[in-house]
Amino acid sequence: MANNLFEITRQLRHNIIRSTTAAGTGHPTSSLSGVEFMTAIMFDGHFRAVLDNPLNINNDRLIFSKGHACPLLYSLYYTAGHLSEDKLMSLRKFGSNIEGHPTMNWEYTEAATGSLGQGLGVAVGMALGLKKEFNDYPLSKGSEAKTQGDSIPNVYCVLGDSEMAEGSVWEAMNSAVYFNLNNLIAVIDLNRLGQRGQTQIGHDTNNMKAKCEAFGWETFVIEEGNDLESCRRVMNEATESKSGKPKMVIAKTYKGARISFLQNKDGWHGKALSQEDCEKALKEIGEVDLKMIGEIPHPLTNLDKTIKKAIKDSPFPKGSEAKTHGDYDKTTEVATRKAYGNALNNLGAINPNIVALDGEMNNSTYSEIFAKNFPDRYYEMFIAEQNMISVASGMSRIGLIPFTSTFAAFWSRAADQIRMGQYSHSNLKIMGSHCGVSIGPDGSSQMAVEDIAIFRTILNSVVLYPSDAVSTDRLMTKIAEHVGISYMRCTRAETPVIYDKTETFEIGGSKTLRSSKNDKITVIAAGITLHEALKAYDELQTKEINIRVIDLYSIKPLDLETLKKANTETNQIVVVEDHYREGGIYEAICGSQTITKPIHSLCVTKMSCSGSPEELLGLMEIDAEAIVKKVLSLV
Amino acid sequence: MANNLFEITRQLRHNIIRSTTAAGTGHPTSSLSGVEFMTAIMFDGHFRAVLDNPLNINNDRLIFSKGHACPLLYSLYYTAGHLSEDKLMSLRKFGSNIEGHPTMNWEYTEAATGSLGQGLGVAVGMALGLKKEFNDYPLSKGSEAKTQGDSIPNVYCVLGDSEMAEGSVWEAMNSAVYFNLNNLIAVIDLNRLGQRGQTQIGHDTNNMKAKCEAFGWETFVIEEGNDLESCRRVMNEATESKSGKPKMVIAKTYKGARISFLQNKDGWHGKALSQEDCEKALKEIGEVDLKMIGEIPHPLTNLDKTIKKAIKDSPFPKGSEAKTHGDYDKTTEVATRKAYGNALNNLGAINPNIVALDGEMNNSTYSEIFAKNFPDRYYEMFIAEQNMISVASGMSRIGLIPFTSTFAAFWSRAADQIRMGQYSHSNLKIMGSHCGVSIGPDGSSQMAVEDIAIFRTILNSVVLYPSDAVSTDRLMTKIAEHVGISYMRCTRAETPVIYDKTETFEIGGSKTLRSSKNDKITVIAAGITLHEALKAYDELQTKEINIRVIDLYSIKPLDLETLKKANTETNQIVVVEDHYREGGIYEAICGSQTITKPIHSLCVTKMSCSGSPEELLGLMEIDAEAIVKKVLSLV
Repeated sequence: MANNLFEITRQLRHNIIRSTTAAGTGHPTSSLSGVEFMTAIMFDGHFRAVLDNPLNINNDRLIFSKGHACPLLYSLYYTAGHLSEDKLMSLRKFGSNIEGHPTMNWEYTEAATGSLGQGLGVAVGMALGLKKEFNDYPLSKGSEAKTQGDSIPNVYCVLGDSEMAEGSVWEAMNSAVYFNLNNLIAVIDLNRLGQRGQTQIGHDTNNMKAKCEAFGWETFVIEEGNDLESCRRVMNEATESKSGKPKMVIAKTYKGARISFLQNKDGWHGKALSQEDCEKALKEIGEVDLKMIGEIPHPLTNLDKTIKKAIKDSPFPKGSEAKTHGDYDKTTEVATRKAYGNALNNLGAINPNIVALDGEMNNSTYSEIFAKNFPDRYYEMFIAEQNMISVASGMSRIGLIPFTSTFAAFWSRAADQIRMGQYSHSNLKIMGSHCGVSIGPDGSSQMAVEDIAIFRTILNSVVLYPSDAVSTDRLMTKIAEHVGISYMRCTRAETPVIYDKTETFEIGGSKTLRSSKNDKITVIAAGITLHEALKAYDELQTKEINIRVIDLYSIKPLDLETLKKANTETNQIVVVEDHYREGGIYEAICGSQTITKPIHSLCVTKMSCSGSPEELLGLMEIDAEAIVKKVLSLV
Repeated sequence: MANNLFEITRQLRHNIIRSTTAAGTGHPTSSLSGVEFMTAIMFDGHFRAVLDNPLNINNDRLIFSKGHACPLLYSLYYTAGHLSEDKLMSLRKFGSNIEGHPTMNWEYTEAATGSLGQGLGVAVGMALGLKKEFNDYPLSKGSEAKTQGDSIPNVYCVLGDSEMAEGSVWEAMNSAVYFNLNNLIAVIDLNRLGQRGQTQIGHDTNNMKAKCEAFGWETFVIEEGNDLESCRRVMNEATESKSGKPKMVIAKTYKGARISFLQNKDGWHGKALSQEDCEKALKEIGEVDLKMIGEIPHPLTNLDKTIKKAIKDSPFPKGSEAKTHGDYDKTTEVATRKAYGNALNNLGAINPNIVALDGEMNNSTYSEIFAKNFPDRYYEMFIAEQNMISVASGMSRIGLIPFTSTFAAFWSRAADQIRMGQYSHSNLKIMGSHCGVSIGPDGSSQMAVEDIAIFRTILNSVVLYPSDAVSTDRLMTKIAEHVGISYMRCTRAETPVIYDKTETFEIGGSKTLRSSKNDKITVIAAGITLHEALKAYDELQTKEINIRVIDLYSIKPLDLETLKKANTETNQIVVVEDHYREGGIYEAICGSQTITKPIHSLCVTKMSCSGSPEELLGLMEIDAEAIVKKVLSLV
């Protein structure tokens, strides 16, 4: 075995170097440092997977958080016989699924990485998801020691030392301990050198060990991280530990390891070797066998159990939609965030794959209703929004349907994780409560006035902004069924229930609430401003002015037909929104090629402050009075 | 003294409770837990400040990272005679500068807080800035022990325990140690309870102590955090320590401390007391003296030295602009990121207040040129973008002019910090290199295709996207002079120098590069696509089709006059951008009310991948060929 493993390390080095040189770009040195510990993990009996079925629920999972080291990742699968010679040599080329950083175009990618510091959070989500799928959650602290013989798959995560500077990693560190993830094994490739020189701690393994231990992880150090036998010994210790804790292996390695002119040398980050240097390096490595020489052990049990796909295998039973309905009377006032909480709870009763995550705000977002009724499917993420999204991404890869919630303003904290979610094909249902200036006295820091813009930038995202409890409730079913990234913007205040129980709502829909043959102007609103528009309508009626009022609850995609109709049938358009103009509803409409008539924007144009909701809607001139004034100025 | 201090604690509690009850909203219990340690810091000889001049450079600084506890902050200044009774009782009311979370409307706010986990990074920036202003940077490790008698001001930062879950805090923890910030003293108000129950570690002071020590901070624990004498003793120890390290005081406190029916009780987060409960609480506290009873010690030296205001006191000397110019020949090709680096270096030679921060990317962003020439003004922030922005915000408050740089895609990581920067009135110059799909083989994770949208949402932000070295260079001077948040988008590839050395560029400007009386169509581009538009122009010329080509290098603000002129003089508009449509250049133009003619968008509409820049510009149909095709389809 050991001899064969050594041959594997030589083959990996050979393939890392020649594939990057063929690409003319890439990260050979960051890949070389991890060769030995990855050989130990993948080919020394630890990593168990049926590679013919990457989604097999029994598979161990591997996340390269240091995504730039993917030449190593690809080479591992080459060695295991699951990547062809042609494919390997197509690295980073247009049309190849072997990209510069791992993407979902390649079947063995578990999460798109490349924005550093995100892989561990995704790994936490996968480890949590796997424990849930194997009915091993919640696991009381230290109650069960996971060993290799157990059937719950392990999740391995490879971290770079530079990315340990990202706070998101430490959010995940906390989270893994909180959830007692004994099936999570991470490795830090402590190769000392970042992109432009030494990292903050260099090769100080004690420094990193102290940090990881303080965060509650069982920690192992490989002092000779490019010595195969050292790696084998320590990886054995780590996987056989019965501590019940998540495990961190700190491997002191060398960037460019075992190639004399690269090893531990600065100035080689992200550089492919020239043809000449490549030949020099390959010569140092010596002749290698270029066929499959590594075998990945299979899991021991349940070989046929395949992953539950989020919606496909767990559809909402026919007629179940009715059961999800919250019962809202048109005489009442209900906050849409509360309707969200009720709907989440109702959906949870129907679909066991639905889970909820919240950033220590569940009594504001009302995900507490779900938490109370489904405690085993509620995950408290504390105030760590980045990690909440990464964990949800990991869970969705396991087939769970995660609903995440916090204040809308605080989702900007996770903008990069949400961005990466689109590349990971994550199935994320994100709710932001307390949007806009209408929250009142808490002041500007708590007011989301840019969230629509941020969520609209996600490819194929869905952005919804319902105005009442009925529409919120009905749209929650649509969101649950939708696969992809969706965002629901909710309001703090209680707002009148304006829709009848029989109304239906669609992603991409809208409602024309007031219209006549004599409409001069169309007022388009959503959420809190819709109620202002309706008040304005009433006021204008007393002046015998007819306006059309559209509830544009689906901001992305837009209901283009209704917009075109309003453009045809009325003379001017006024868009009213509790959001900055930039990237908001007005700009979305302007860019939609539906409006040729004059179009006007009422929106947040100045810095907000504390005050009552009414005072602030007035200050921003997005209340009924401002709408009336605007309409009067136009007719 | 001690008796008076005890009286202060009673007055603080009294004022916290009655001000929040008067507001009918707010966070009395989160404020009450911090009364004793804040009394010790502010009134027991530690915090030194001339409150008549909040910007005095000699002042110690105080940042309430747990911004929701501002009723305590305001009450402290009431006690010190710097907040009137009327003002205190205007808490959270419309028009009051005593807002729900601290904002810059109040003269003693050092940083707008309320999005948790950001205050420590700002404090790091202020402590760094103060050390620089007092010529105490770089400080070699442990070389100098700061004691109270020294003249360098201290920065105090009050953290909540819930916000310790935010990764950004741990980025700042690393950073403070890297920069040896012995003038930074933070306190964690470990009051056990978050918004909806216990935090992850509750009252486990040992857990937090181990983490802080592992991160390299000298750590002190106040086991009785609501005992005044305990707080006095430990704060004395902390401020008198000569360890040379940043200091963390962990105060085990009780939420709602010393009010029997609030103390350590769940369910009281963010709730003002009813009038009845308020009276009950005030009765428990007993009679208090409602006049100024606390005095804040003054600094010992340099009382007249006031802060250097960023631009006002350090303008660019007349005629200096010429000296900033990089010398670019129209026959060469230069990456705009390199022109950024050169310009930064040139500006640094003129203005000593300019500092540079980079996220371990300085050899990609070319801030390495500045780093090499001004090592004492270059700050390596490692891969921690959130902290980079927070630190820059803190530095700008001290009067420095921070330029920050990393890959454009990774600024999404700091979206919330940038958002808060607008509320902190921060003076931030942000550069994002490697924008768009044109970076090529690295793949989607490294490609910023939403950065324009994010930066446009910042109130009064400036968003620039120059296409060549000359325009980049000239715009850098404008950015340096501008006060506020600006973003410069730079390209990875070398692009032709298209402007003559004599050209001038303005924030809000544009350049019409090709025009004639017969222009049928206007093509608007910026950055990389401008070069494609120019190529398309040449190609179309061969077909005797005239197009107008506009370099819209200022995306916010827009050059409305030029857009209107193009709208008048040509029949259709085509906007070409290496960015998603949402929130990008096209939507900005659509929303600008300047275009009434048909307008078309060529932009990134699908998921990107690895490939050559040319292949990817082609894939997205934003290259010269696509522009030609589009124009031909329109004429």
